[in-house]
Amino acid sequence: MYSFKNDYAEGAHPNILQKLMETNFSQQAGYGEDAYTLEAKELIKQKIANPQASIYFLSGGTQTNLIVIASLLRIHEAVISAKTGHIYANETGAIEATGHRVITVETADGKLRVADIEQVLKEYGLRPHVVKPKMVYISNSTEIGTIYQKSELAQLSAYCKSKNLYLFMDGARLGHALTASNNDLNLADLSALTDAFYIGGTKNGALLGEAIVFNNPAMAPEFDYALKQRGALLAKGRLLGIQFLELFKDDLYFSLAAHANQMAMKISIAMEEKGYAALTKSTTNQIFPILPNGIISKLNQKYEFYVWKPVDAHHAAIRLITSWATDEAKVDEFIRDLKTLQV
Amino acid sequence: MYSFKNDYAEGAHPNILQKLMETNFSQQAGYGEDAYTLEAKELIKQKIANPQASIYFLSGGTQTNLIVIASLLRIHEAVISAKTGHIYANETGAIEATGHRVITVETADGKLRVADIEQVLKEYGLRPHVVKPKMVYISNSTEIGTIYQKSELAQLSAYCKSKNLYLFMDGARLGHALTASNNDLNLADLSALTDAFYIGGTKNGALLGEAIVFNNPAMAPEFDYALKQRGALLAKGRLLGIQFLELFKDDLYFSLAAHANQMAMKISIAMEEKGYAALTKSTTNQIFPILPNGIISKLNQKYEFYVWKPVDAHHAAIRLITSWATDEAKVDEFIRDLKTLQV
Amino acid sequence: MYSFKNDYAEGAHPNILQKLMETNFSQQAGYGEDAYTLEAKELIKQKIANPQASIYFLSGGTQTNLIVIASLLRIHEAVISAKTGHIYANETGAIEATGHRVITVETADGKLRVADIEQVLKEYGLRPHVVKPKMVYISNSTEIGTIYQKSELAQLSAYCKSKNLYLFMDGARLGHALTASNNDLNLADLSALTDAFYIGGTKNGALLGEAIVFNNPAMAPEFDYALKQRGALLAKGRLLGIQFLELFKDDLYFSLAAHANQMAMKISIAMEEKGYAALTKSTTNQIFPILPNGIISKLNQKYEFYVWKPVDAHHAAIRLITSWATDEAKVDEFIRDLKTLQV
Amino acid sequence: MYSFKNDYAEGAHPNILQKLMETNFSQQAGYGEDAYTLEAKELIKQKIANPQASIYFLSGGTQTNLIVIASLLRIHEAVISAKTGHIYANETGAIEATGHRVITVETADGKLRVADIEQVLKEYGLRPHVVKPKMVYISNSTEIGTIYQKSELAQLSAYCKSKNLYLFMDGARLGHALTASNNDLNLADLSALTDAFYIGGTKNGALLGEAIVFNNPAMAPEFDYALKQRGALLAKGRLLGIQFLELFKDDLYFSLAAHANQMAMKISIAMEEKGYAALTKSTTNQIFPILPNGIISKLNQKYEFYVWKPVDAHHAAIRLITSWATDEAKVDEFIRDLKTLQV
Repeated sequence: MYSFKNDYAEGAHPNILQKLMETNFSQQAGYGEDAYTLEAKELIKQKIANPQASIYFLSGGTQTNLIVIASLLRIHEAVISAKTGHIYANETGAIEATGHRVITVETADGKLRVADIEQVLKEYGLRPHVVKPKMVYISNSTEIGTIYQKSELAQLSAYCKSKNLYLFMDGARLGHALTASNNDLNLADLSALTDAFYIGGTKNGALLGEAIVFNNPAMAPEFDYALKQRGALLAKGRLLGIQFLELFKDDLYFSLAAHANQMAMKISIAMEEKGYAALTKSTTNQIFPILPNGIISKLNQKYEFYVWKPVDAHHAAIRLITSWATDEAKVDEFIRDLKTLQV
Repeated sequence: MYSFKNDYAEGAHPNILQKLMETNFSQQAGYGEDAYTLEAKELIKQKIANPQASIYFLSGGTQTNLIVIASLLRIHEAVISAKTGHIYANETGAIEATGHRVITVETADGKLRVADIEQVLKEYGLRPHVVKPKMVYISNSTEIGTIYQKSELAQLSAYCKSKNLYLFMDGARLGHALTASNNDLNLADLSALTDAFYIGGTKNGALLGEAIVFNNPAMAPEFDYALKQRGALLAKGRLLGIQFLELFKDDLYFSLAAHANQMAMKISIAMEEKGYAALTKSTTNQIFPILPNGIISKLNQKYEFYVWKPVDAHHAAIRLITSWATDEAKVDEFIRDLKTLQV
Repeated sequence: MYSFKNDYAEGAHPNILQKLMETNFSQQAGYGEDAYTLEAKELIKQKIANPQASIYFLSGGTQTNLIVIASLLRIHEAVISAKTGHIYANETGAIEATGHRVITVETADGKLRVADIEQVLKEYGLRPHVVKPKMVYISNSTEIGTIYQKSELAQLSAYCKSKNLYLFMDGARLGHALTASNNDLNLADLSALTDAFYIGGTKNGALLGEAIVFNNPAMAPEFDYALKQRGALLAKGRLLGIQFLELFKDDLYFSLAAHANQMAMKISIAMEEKGYAALTKSTTNQIFPILPNGIISKLNQKYEFYVWKPVDAHHAAIRLITSWATDEAKVDEFIRDLKTLQV
Repeated sequence: MYSFKNDYAEGAHPNILQKLMETNFSQQAGYGEDAYTLEAKELIKQKIANPQASIYFLSGGTQTNLIVIASLLRIHEAVISAKTGHIYANETGAIEATGHRVITVETADGKLRVADIEQVLKEYGLRPHVVKPKMVYISNSTEIGTIYQKSELAQLSAYCKSKNLYLFMDGARLGHALTASNNDLNLADLSALTDAFYIGGTKNGALLGEAIVFNNPAMAPEFDYALKQRGALLAKGRLLGIQFLELFKDDLYFSLAAHANQMAMKISIAMEEKGYAALTKSTTNQIFPILPNGIISKLNQKYEFYVWKPVDAHHAAIRLITSWATDEAKVDEFIRDLKTLQV
């Protein structure tokens, strides 16, 4: 069986393991004060073109989301998210567990727009009987494979500023977004247009690791306390620093993501050629083709993937995810199988 | 400079890195459902002689403490700890951040005894104006290097059972406790005498990782939800499983800890020979010798360590920590330096 | 101006003030241990025909909801509510502030049905990445004036039992529900069919006060701690006990609610006679007639009420609330005004 | 039996009940927007000589403490209190339940001094492994009857300002403090020297009610949300407003407290005359005389009070509390009984 189930089925990019080996016996300070972490932070500041930014490394997406949100919001404030947003759909109430409502918006494509936020503000007007919306949470790429265009992000950004709302981008799959064929954003844009965003490592070549960036350091001057309090400050912070150093050296991060996208697009094109529609217009490493149930069963004998949801009595959307580690030979084999399968 | 500052200054034991390399491209299920994690859990169940136990792997001590405690306590319940206990002294209010008081007890040696708990129960009698003590938290080895004897643990255990209190052992340095010269406990004893305990990896050869053991699986049947909610469920759970597999293969875990203890004891004996007293009677890898300030300054030119606290105008206790990675040649050099130093 | 804005515009029923006067200098134990409170609890146990129930008096609905829910749920559990439910729509995120998600369901009439709960359980199946639905919260009467029939409540109750879900009824306007013309439930039914429910005093003649009933005392054996911890345990608990004593003496509670309903129905009939539709089919003390904007403006010159929501360019629904204190002469005057008004 | 157990054994001052009667059928806005509440706030602003202050009325001390502290602190911040402080000793972990540590200080007299705070700051220096002390909580009068002198409060205030710490005063028994014979503070001083304080009504003549004063309105501009979220915003806010109007009309608040103090001092003097020492040097309405156990038993046959703590094998301290409602004839009888009792 070959798995297209997710983008964390393998270990780490070999460069990372190699570097862990090489640096293993260097004695380093703990808790993120090691030389690798400090160097990785400087490197990222360069990449985002924001020397003032403040950066921290965490272990995973849920951890990052919950600590950032809990740190920034006051007790009566809430965060707005697409209903498909990871903080609402996949994190076991992590945000509510810190005391804050996630206000959800139904969307067609997993993306929030100014009109969505306006509508929420209107619905949450009856102070003090309602929570105060204070943050907008978006994912790029989204949980269903779509990405934000620069103009869309700029509009959201301007609106949030005008309403005194934080704009926070979940970048668990940021590499995939920024290397998509239809992308026109770069890291510096994100630093200019959001209040905070994170650069996901776990789903793009690291063993674990997300880099949260506060674009204005005055925003979270005591975030270190929050990290420690929520169990996110690794004694051996070097483990995270070393990985981000490797990922951003020679832009490995982007070439890994580009590979993942290419593999997904290759399958996507094959699907289209076979005449299969897709649930969402993904240009990244998650695709949601709609297949006859019989085809799904047969593919499932050789390949692992999620059956996302039934579309009608005879068809369902499946989710295929590729990654930095996806073997192109397996992708080609999958496509050959697809082409020859009969319902 | 050579560091005796902590036991997480280096990376991981080479076996672990080697195994990460070897397994790197094996596709595995996420979130702790991988083959390595499942195997590691079985291995630990054998070692603790409790096939019914339920085991989870987490990233660090604070994370483990806060999730275990938050999962087990009801909103009005509290945990009792020595004032030196890690949950009180070193975790940025992590327990209180989950809504629970840590009731502290002053101790001479970092260890809780039945009389301490009895006193707390007496002080917290005025229901409902006080929290309800419901858990006893102990560390083994303690934060100041001491360990529990089997008879002490058995007494605590019996008392806790009689009072319907959970007994939870923080084992961030459990290896060091169980390999101390004066130790008479083993893993099976811990499983029989506590409700839950964890086996610390971070401070004994792992990159990161703690294994929490619930000795009675009915105690925390839905702990998986808690892990995910608090950001502790790694997508690549294999990272933790592989490490514990390696640590418990051929009892590497114990040989690493024994080395750390031996290095500390070697220094400890040298200190005694020089006539220096110690703050605590440690038999593990943290020692607290009391030195003249002049000696401290001179040692500090070549070695890193914490100056723990002033003892009088001319003396202070320092903390020296050794680890699985401590180089015996450096220990010998340190001892030679110590012997030749003049105030 | 006469107000139909809410059911808490006046003070308390005069019997209550009279009793406060009479008992004022009797020395009583604090914190709900006074003789009046104990007597009121016994009286309510008789009325609900459940001598085993455990009962506590609190100050208001939000306070009651948040303490009950926080006490009963474990950290990863969630409560299901209609989107119009008070805990979601009007309590400033009080439930989320205790760490729990409110899972909402869109409904036509403010009422939850078995199919709604089934759908939620289906959506929340991907353990452990989602919260665990554990409680169903319903309001009777609902926030839009509708009530539960006995058969509906029995179905919900049986389903919740079969799925191990708590069923909790918010009875802020329970009196109005139980005296509605189409009601077939009584207090004993509620005690048999729910796990917990509360009897609202604030909106039915008390200065403040809600009586929470746990039908099975094993459910919340330490609720007293929770009350104190969340600031709900009044030093002078007598204030609550005395009020419930008076409200349940000679069934004053029901006669007050019946009056409120009659006043609302009188207006409701007049609205129908004028040909005005209503947003919801209310049989209780909140009605939502849809009027031409011109009529609304004119009524608003003499009467206070909420303009609930626009229905089209020329019409809006308003909310009129009557209470135990509503003056029938004012109702008659309102109806006369309504009849003579021209757009 | 006559009770000296607490200062909330009776109902409310008759003026309050009278006013509740008179205003009962006046229709008023809910949630603290009624005319009485607005007028009471203005009156208090005059009394504290701070027209800028922002004031809210709550139901009780625990509720006030927890909402104020939870609103002002960020997630990693803590509050410092005397170990005898109400938030630590008597509130069922209410503060910790909002996520914050209460750092305690042992004191001889229940009062915090600059040196105590300095010591805490020193102990909590190891950022980010410890919480950040951010608020100093004091009670006046303290839980053991002592009061702050103006010079003491001024020193604390200056120190807190210099360290960027909030200074918050619990005034559950503020009236008793400000009318003590050795008091040199007034309400305007409190407004100048603290960041926030509350004026306790429950223990000084009200049915329930505390008035929290934020001396700088920029400190808590959205406190209304917090009130609602924590279940503290009464629908019939008039109940609180009316009471504070009455209490501050003609300085009733102070004459009530003065009476309570006089009754306590009368007993205190009688105790001294009999040669009995006291546990604390109280000048307010709580006294802690040390009596032979035999005397205690005999007094207990006619009078209710707490036996506070054993002093030696033959003596214990008792706690006697007087109030605005304490009957001077009963005090005289108590004193007569005391004089004639033989061990």
